[in-house]
Amino acid sequence: MQLKEMSKEELEAFLSENKAKLENFKEKNLSLNMARGKPSTQQLDLAVKMLASVNSFDADYSASDGTDCRNYGGLEGICDAKELFAPMLGVSTDEIIIGGNSSLNLMYDTIAKGIIFGVNGVDKPWKDYEKIKWICLVPGYDRHFAICESFGIEMINVPLGKDGPDMDMIESLVANDDTIKGIWCVPMYSNPTGITYSDEVVRRFANLKPKANDFRIFWDNAYCIHHLTDTPDKLLNILDECKKAGTEDMVYIFASTSKISFAGGGIAVLGASKKNVDYLLSLMTIQTIGFDKINQLRHVKFFGSYEGLKEHMKKHAEIIKPKFDVCLEALDKEIAPLGIGEWHKPHGGYFISFNSMDNCAKKIVSLCKEAGVVLTSAGATFPYGKDPNDSNIRIAPTFPTVDELRQAIEIFCIAVKIASAEKLLSEK
Amino acid sequence: MQLKEMSKEELEAFLSENKAKLENFKEKNLSLNMARGKPSTQQLDLAVKMLASVNSFDADYSASDGTDCRNYGGLEGICDAKELFAPMLGVSTDEIIIGGNSSLNLMYDTIAKGIIFGVNGVDKPWKDYEKIKWICLVPGYDRHFAICESFGIEMINVPLGKDGPDMDMIESLVANDDTIKGIWCVPMYSNPTGITYSDEVVRRFANLKPKANDFRIFWDNAYCIHHLTDTPDKLLNILDECKKAGTEDMVYIFASTSKISFAGGGIAVLGASKKNVDYLLSLMTIQTIGFDKINQLRHVKFFGSYEGLKEHMKKHAEIIKPKFDVCLEALDKEIAPLGIGEWHKPHGGYFISFNSMDNCAKKIVSLCKEAGVVLTSAGATFPYGKDPNDSNIRIAPTFPTVDELRQAIEIFCIAVKIASAEKLLSEK
Repeated sequence: MQLKEMSKEELEAFLSENKAKLENFKEKNLSLNMARGKPSTQQLDLAVKMLASVNSFDADYSASDGTDCRNYGGLEGICDAKELFAPMLGVSTDEIIIGGNSSLNLMYDTIAKGIIFGVNGVDKPWKDYEKIKWICLVPGYDRHFAICESFGIEMINVPLGKDGPDMDMIESLVANDDTIKGIWCVPMYSNPTGITYSDEVVRRFANLKPKANDFRIFWDNAYCIHHLTDTPDKLLNILDECKKAGTEDMVYIFASTSKISFAGGGIAVLGASKKNVDYLLSLMTIQTIGFDKINQLRHVKFFGSYEGLKEHMKKHAEIIKPKFDVCLEALDKEIAPLGIGEWHKPHGGYFISFNSMDNCAKKIVSLCKEAGVVLTSAGATFPYGKDPNDSNIRIAPTFPTVDELRQAIEIFCIAVKIASAEKLLSEK
Repeated sequence: MQLKEMSKEELEAFLSENKAKLENFKEKNLSLNMARGKPSTQQLDLAVKMLASVNSFDADYSASDGTDCRNYGGLEGICDAKELFAPMLGVSTDEIIIGGNSSLNLMYDTIAKGIIFGVNGVDKPWKDYEKIKWICLVPGYDRHFAICESFGIEMINVPLGKDGPDMDMIESLVANDDTIKGIWCVPMYSNPTGITYSDEVVRRFANLKPKANDFRIFWDNAYCIHHLTDTPDKLLNILDECKKAGTEDMVYIFASTSKISFAGGGIAVLGASKKNVDYLLSLMTIQTIGFDKINQLRHVKFFGSYEGLKEHMKKHAEIIKPKFDVCLEALDKEIAPLGIGEWHKPHGGYFISFNSMDNCAKKIVSLCKEAGVVLTSAGATFPYGKDPNDSNIRIAPTFPTVDELRQAIEIFCIAVKIASAEKLLSEK
């Protein structure tokens, strides 16, 4: 029976039953966390042999072109790392920069350079505008939005659907407003909704005709090889499509091994047209003496090839797929029949995006917290932390153990039921 | 006999003799490099055991507070790294940020933040000025100057003497011009002159009364423990002196292990008042998910303590002291009696700064190049690459072997003699 079809009395009984269940959990003093997309200890253990791949017994610290990875130089990354990661981004080895340990840092710095210097070939830096704007797909990644907010960039929400964002809206926005300088995209296994952009959406991105010649697509392909199933989603190569459309300078592609090797101890990469790469390197050579080449060599020696990277990701999937299943099964069993929430079953990535009935998300997060389950703050998936419907909640199932998760998602379902019943009762 | 005392005939004979010597070297097709301050392979070998200090056999990836260094978090650095490096900077553990692999990157980003956001407690960011200025001590570090040039910051030269810069000039400049926002200092074993600031100079820095309340001292203490002798220079603690003067928010201190562990694979650190540290972290938390904590743990396990760091530096000194000696002995023997150059004998650091007769530096560098010896470009030690006297040349003796260096410095001395003789002849 759908919850909204219940009588007042039925709802009250339902509410009090679930409140009692929540009270039971409260007494257990649990401390469970489904808030951040962190790999679990078991996942981190998968790559520990990498830490021995460049060591004192090895006595070979050279890239295959002879570069001593322990010394200065090699701003753009060692040749072997470029070869390893170029196919992951779908670019050639002269269209890639191997960065430090954080792709977020590469994105932030790329915007900072736009602000201070402007983008390649455009003389006017963004600091010389009264205000610039950014398109933010919602729900989306809180740290993307935080960067815009920090820089004082005005964010424009565009809804994300099942096969990508509302392209009509994006085409119209960028065609008419030359103060719109960028857009955040997580095109594959989107954070948090888990959807992947359709071929048509990617082609429409490549064929955008922005009024601003310094408009840039920030293509954060964070989950490009982070599949959960044997039938993964497929994403069209944006740089290839841009080349066909003659817009290859319009896109920057980002990824990292933070959720492949080590979170914070991995390698971040940036893919772009040769022109953009050369321009960014011309600025980066002033900013740093180069990134950590020893860590690049470690990754190269451990993974060997792009095939090796993909094989490694199967081990991650083995660990985290059951966690997604625990959550999705609970939602299917507990929430679906009641008609009080919606979600997508992702084929990869790190999140399940749950949409409650309107005006329930904050309440659900707060109820969970009372029972010892920490969730990402309601609203966090929207710019300025403001979810206009107060309905989206990002569930991050990777870090807890399966047993912890089983409890956490049970509590979550109870919280959804309580918040939904209270809402329906208040409307009776 | 001093060269300037020679007759025309004597000079001509001297010149032709040295030209013949240079020709002999040219025939050898040498390829020697005294250009960049790079550690030698032998130095890099000193720390290779660090690469095994955190490995797959170890199975302990935790900081002493339990942080798993393989996962996200810990923006300010792991507690153990803060304890290791705080005494090196002369700050407390809440006055330090453990960064990525490059102190230059920390400096660049700190200025970029000043430009975009302004400094702590000052609302007006530097981008909102028509022009801002920076004091550059000359001769100085080319990469410092390149940062200012890249950002369009106007550089003002102030001469560096035997015990530090001309403080009268600095005091007067900062007191009268509120568009002067910063100054570059390498206070110990200065790059390139090798001098260390006297106590009085440090105290005068701490007691500066800048007109701009967002003026900042960039104290790049790159060579803080890079001693060459058993009687090292001593540098007063700038943060302590600033605290006495109530100016502790005026200084940022930088250092790294690039020339302690690995160049590009080390750890950069920033020391500052608690207020400045908190402010910088509040901006950095948007910029990155944190730096590489596994590499921090590696450094902690390998060096153990500040004492361990200092002991390690003695091994570096053993390797590079003979290289400095080869150069200094050659200069003493070949150049000093002729009165055609000046230099300081440094007690630490990475460079020997040679001042030729005016208008000879470019010629010397060019002659060396013809004979297969690469030197830092003449002028590089001055803003915009312009040495007004064309006399300063930075010699970097660490990277070549002692044998290579012996040849390189011999060629250098010949080039100095040729350029000086030609100059004197042209004036006859």
